[in-house]
Amino acid sequence: MIVTLLTDYGHDDDFAGICHAVIASVAPEVRVIDLTHGIPRFDVRRGALALRDALPYLPVGVHVAVVDPQVGTERRAVALSTAEGRMFVGPDNGLLSLAADRAGGVEVAVDITRSPHRLEPVSATFHGRDLFAPVAARLAAGSEMADAGTPLDPGELQTIELPRPSMDADTLVTHVLYTDGFGNATLDAGHEDLAGSGLTLGRPVDVQVGGRRLAATYTSSFADVEPGEAILYEDAQRALALAINRGDAAAAFGLTPDTEVRLRPR
Amino acid sequence: MIVTLLTDYGHDDDFAGICHAVIASVAPEVRVIDLTHGIPRFDVRRGALALRDALPYLPVGVHVAVVDPQVGTERRAVALSTAEGRMFVGPDNGLLSLAADRAGGVEVAVDITRSPHRLEPVSATFHGRDLFAPVAARLAAGSEMADAGTPLDPGELQTIELPRPSMDADTLVTHVLYTDGFGNATLDAGHEDLAGSGLTLGRPVDVQVGGRRLAATYTSSFADVEPGEAILYEDAQRALALAINRGDAAAAFGLTPDTEVRLRPR
Amino acid sequence: MIVTLLTDYGHDDDFAGICHAVIASVAPEVRVIDLTHGIPRFDVRRGALALRDALPYLPVGVHVAVVDPQVGTERRAVALSTAEGRMFVGPDNGLLSLAADRAGGVEVAVDITRSPHRLEPVSATFHGRDLFAPVAARLAAGSEMADAGTPLDPGELQTIELPRPSMDADTLVTHVLYTDGFGNATLDAGHEDLAGSGLTLGRPVDVQVGGRRLAATYTSSFADVEPGEAILYEDAQRALALAINRGDAAAAFGLTPDTEVRLRPR
Repeated sequence: MIVTLLTDYGHDDDFAGICHAVIASVAPEVRVIDLTHGIPRFDVRRGALALRDALPYLPVGVHVAVVDPQVGTERRAVALSTAEGRMFVGPDNGLLSLAADRAGGVEVAVDITRSPHRLEPVSATFHGRDLFAPVAARLAAGSEMADAGTPLDPGELQTIELPRPSMDADTLVTHVLYTDGFGNATLDAGHEDLAGSGLTLGRPVDVQVGGRRLAATYTSSFADVEPGEAILYEDAQRALALAINRGDAAAAFGLTPDTEVRLRPR
Repeated sequence: MIVTLLTDYGHDDDFAGICHAVIASVAPEVRVIDLTHGIPRFDVRRGALALRDALPYLPVGVHVAVVDPQVGTERRAVALSTAEGRMFVGPDNGLLSLAADRAGGVEVAVDITRSPHRLEPVSATFHGRDLFAPVAARLAAGSEMADAGTPLDPGELQTIELPRPSMDADTLVTHVLYTDGFGNATLDAGHEDLAGSGLTLGRPVDVQVGGRRLAATYTSSFADVEPGEAILYEDAQRALALAINRGDAAAAFGLTPDTEVRLRPR
Repeated sequence: MIVTLLTDYGHDDDFAGICHAVIASVAPEVRVIDLTHGIPRFDVRRGALALRDALPYLPVGVHVAVVDPQVGTERRAVALSTAEGRMFVGPDNGLLSLAADRAGGVEVAVDITRSPHRLEPVSATFHGRDLFAPVAARLAAGSEMADAGTPLDPGELQTIELPRPSMDADTLVTHVLYTDGFGNATLDAGHEDLAGSGLTLGRPVDVQVGGRRLAATYTSSFADVEPGEAILYEDAQRALALAINRGDAAAAFGLTPDTEVRLRPR
């Protein structure tokens, strides 16, 4: 089985490289894929969404995620297995919850805080190296979930609450999930939320953010509008997103996570 | 066969990681080498030069390149095979052309825009995931070029025109191909263009950029001059380059792609 | 055997990727692990410390390190093997010395400057590609050390002198080894240097830097103090370190490599 890694370790340090080395030491035959180490530091929700959205493209394997602002405190560390046969390893702070749901839901959960697979002495700050990597390596090499730690009721796992879109008269009320490096803002609405909204591909949209009103076009491609014009579009994860062609929508409209964005046909 | 990846995806997002995951899903036995994901965003010429210059060091394989400002428009996506047995996969915007020429020239070209190997539904913005990665994985696993798409006349492929050096009386007239992160400027001239220029290793060179005249030394190593002094040297790709020892030549001399740089013996 | 890479090449260029490609060309069966390419440019001591501290987590293999400000000059290039069966490849500037010591000390040293394994012509600036990668690939594939170059007396190898802590009456006098991206400063003292210092876990510490006096707590976790408060703690490499919870100790206290930091119980 392969191991995938998603962390906020960045690339300036050797944190990710040492996790690779630990996995290669414990289970030399296991292949490791770096999904990303670029999750914004400590942004658990962004990590949870990235893992969930990547899932359909990942081979079945052991999916390690580490975005862990509470490392060194009493937060639990867990390994999960799901109906689809996937396994997840990471801190119990909601980071794994959205992906585990999408993978069919958690069937078996194990508290690995004092896993027999851990590397002693476990440091207070680098559980990727001392706990998550060696546990994942053992699981990928065929070790049983039950041997990774102590049983845990899946109902006790931390979850993440996402905002949800709603209709307010003729307006679809959405919220920003996150913004990316180009200032594009991913909203909490998808194709299925558009039924009844009156929003139609190719047609102008009235966008309201705070007290401001903006004109946008609901379209499938940046190329459909002039530079500097706003578009509402379906992004590569099939979520509705707001952008400015060759511009920065987040900066222009003041968009941050949870900002309310109201949409209606113009 | 191995797959190599060269893109402008950067490392902040999971774009490159998802391409790895797709290849591992489609062809688990195929090895993937990240050549770079640091091509400056949308800089097709820089990507084309980097792929061409890396080629002599790459095992024969399937070379994927994605620098794709026109993704989502009608630009073609292609797979190419060359006389050397190498294959190239990417957008048809000239990005592959310099490397394909160096690999012996295109023998077979296939339009993969609607390739049967693509992942449906193909997004408007992420063809690396939905098109280039799965096509490359199939080719690396032994699938035939002819099965990747529809035949295409190699003569119809987009190409990139590079500037060329010339002699103007006693002056070698060159142009900047690109500048790197240290401000070193790679020129369009190589060793073979120096014959007849009078430029000699170890001797001073008169450099003219716009209306400015500068003194440099033609040398083989930064260590041959004092900090702050300019050198003309052969870089690791055997191209002539202009630099300042421990300084930033691009900033100091105002060098950008296509800037004319006139060289003659002092 | 695996190959590990530690360099200051960064991720904007294809330097690291081309080293991977060269290794795959020379020895297709050898696995390569990127330890890090994020060592600060030309910071040989930081690279040497990172390699030494990572060593316990690395499978036995060929460990390549390239932080090489003198590339293109007469500095030697070397391959080393140690009592533990590890091999090291890189420039002879002290970069390999701390890790080689920790791996049991150098048993065999070879000057590889003109190694028969090198790729001709060797460039003046990119020995990672032309020298270190191909030599490492051959060694990892089973080639003998003696065939990599000419014998060298291990006593002639360059070493790195690190500062050492000392007691001055009731004060433990330490020095900054390096600071990381968060402004945390790793000191030259470890657990074993605390005996006799009177410093006790959970107790306040008087920290003196230059003429300034600061209050800190000696603790095992950032979570033990309020945001903005200073802590002395054991980092993930078991070195004593100075930090500010959610702050930047390096900026606040003016800490740079070799800064003297005086510690005593408050």
